[in-house]
Amino acid sequence: MKVLVVGATGAVGSAVAQALAGRGHEVFRAGRTRGDHRVDITSDASVEALYAELGPLDAIVSTAGGLFFGPLARMRPADFDVGLQDKLLGQVRLALLGQHVLREGGSITLTTGVAADDPVRGGANAAAVNAAVEGFVKGAAIELARGQRINAVSPTLLTESLAAYGALFPGVETVPAARVALAYVRSVEGPLTGRVFRVWQ
Amino acid sequence: MKVLVVGATGAVGSAVAQALAGRGHEVFRAGRTRGDHRVDITSDASVEALYAELGPLDAIVSTAGGLFFGPLARMRPADFDVGLQDKLLGQVRLALLGQHVLREGGSITLTTGVAADDPVRGGANAAAVNAAVEGFVKGAAIELARGQRINAVSPTLLTESLAAYGALFPGVETVPAARVALAYVRSVEGPLTGRVFRVWQ
Repeated sequence: MKVLVVGATGAVGSAVAQALAGRGHEVFRAGRTRGDHRVDITSDASVEALYAELGPLDAIVSTAGGLFFGPLARMRPADFDVGLQDKLLGQVRLALLGQHVLREGGSITLTTGVAADDPVRGGANAAAVNAAVEGFVKGAAIELARGQRINAVSPTLLTESLAAYGALFPGVETVPAARVALAYVRSVEGPLTGRVFRVWQ
Repeated sequence: MKVLVVGATGAVGSAVAQALAGRGHEVFRAGRTRGDHRVDITSDASVEALYAELGPLDAIVSTAGGLFFGPLARMRPADFDVGLQDKLLGQVRLALLGQHVLREGGSITLTTGVAADDPVRGGANAAAVNAAVEGFVKGAAIELARGQRINAVSPTLLTESLAAYGALFPGVETVPAARVALAYVRSVEGPLTGRVFRVWQ
């Protein structure tokens, strides 16, 4: 399969790209500032240019998108919009524009996160954005045409990210990125649609 | 209690305002184009002016917010952003700015909808936005200070709206607005926080 991974230089994305390549797929790695292909998911033009360059795809995987973290007491609406424009609308953009370059039976896999279900301090934006991506996946799955599918993967804190983000998630059991990558393989190669694959515990 | 109802001239909002007034609360009715007070929930300045005018509140209720409805196959990112800016960020704005004018023990109640759980055709934006508001409520509840609470009410199709929107929800059992209003009373007067009150069946 011809698979695009957006966010392929991140902790999750690089593991996903490696897992998919290891299973014989032709993987195109895209990132905002690194990777074989550059894309700004907050821009229609940038995303459309990437799709035009790569042509018909069998799978689109997104592990990209920024969020706003900070105390609720000081959060401003403009702060909150950061995550809406990036991890939420950015991933939705990849899906909305991507449906038109996706082959029959192709799949879209987006990324959410544990904070949608188990909120963390400073994570009101993350809780909302992750839940929204999951809502979008459920809503879009019933409308995609030509056997196309869409799912989300919700990872908990990666073992590889414990040093950087562990303070946000006290007591959370981490999972290795290689295990999280399996959920993306399941979404890309499996039959399911409209699902959220939670990779916790 | 001093209660602000934003969206008070809508089908849900008018029932909520009536129910709260009937229970002896002092209700301030606000709307975009009608109501005793005018407010544009997409504008920080407009929301802050309303709060400055009304002063400390015991409860903020929002039954406001627009969504984009349309087929996924033709949906553009800018269409999707309509609901993000209005029903999602608009309600989040009411909460973020409202926490500072809310009295100790005061409550915020936002509105989602059944489409977050049971998507409808053309409703990918609604599914995402409603889910996001529910995620925000869960995330914000753990951070609000001074005993403040936040909940969401998720109504299904109103009996009063069957003629206008029934075609979107084939086979859905409607509920009368007066019954939906009870869930808002429960949120305003009760002890719960971080909850979604689903008013279905």
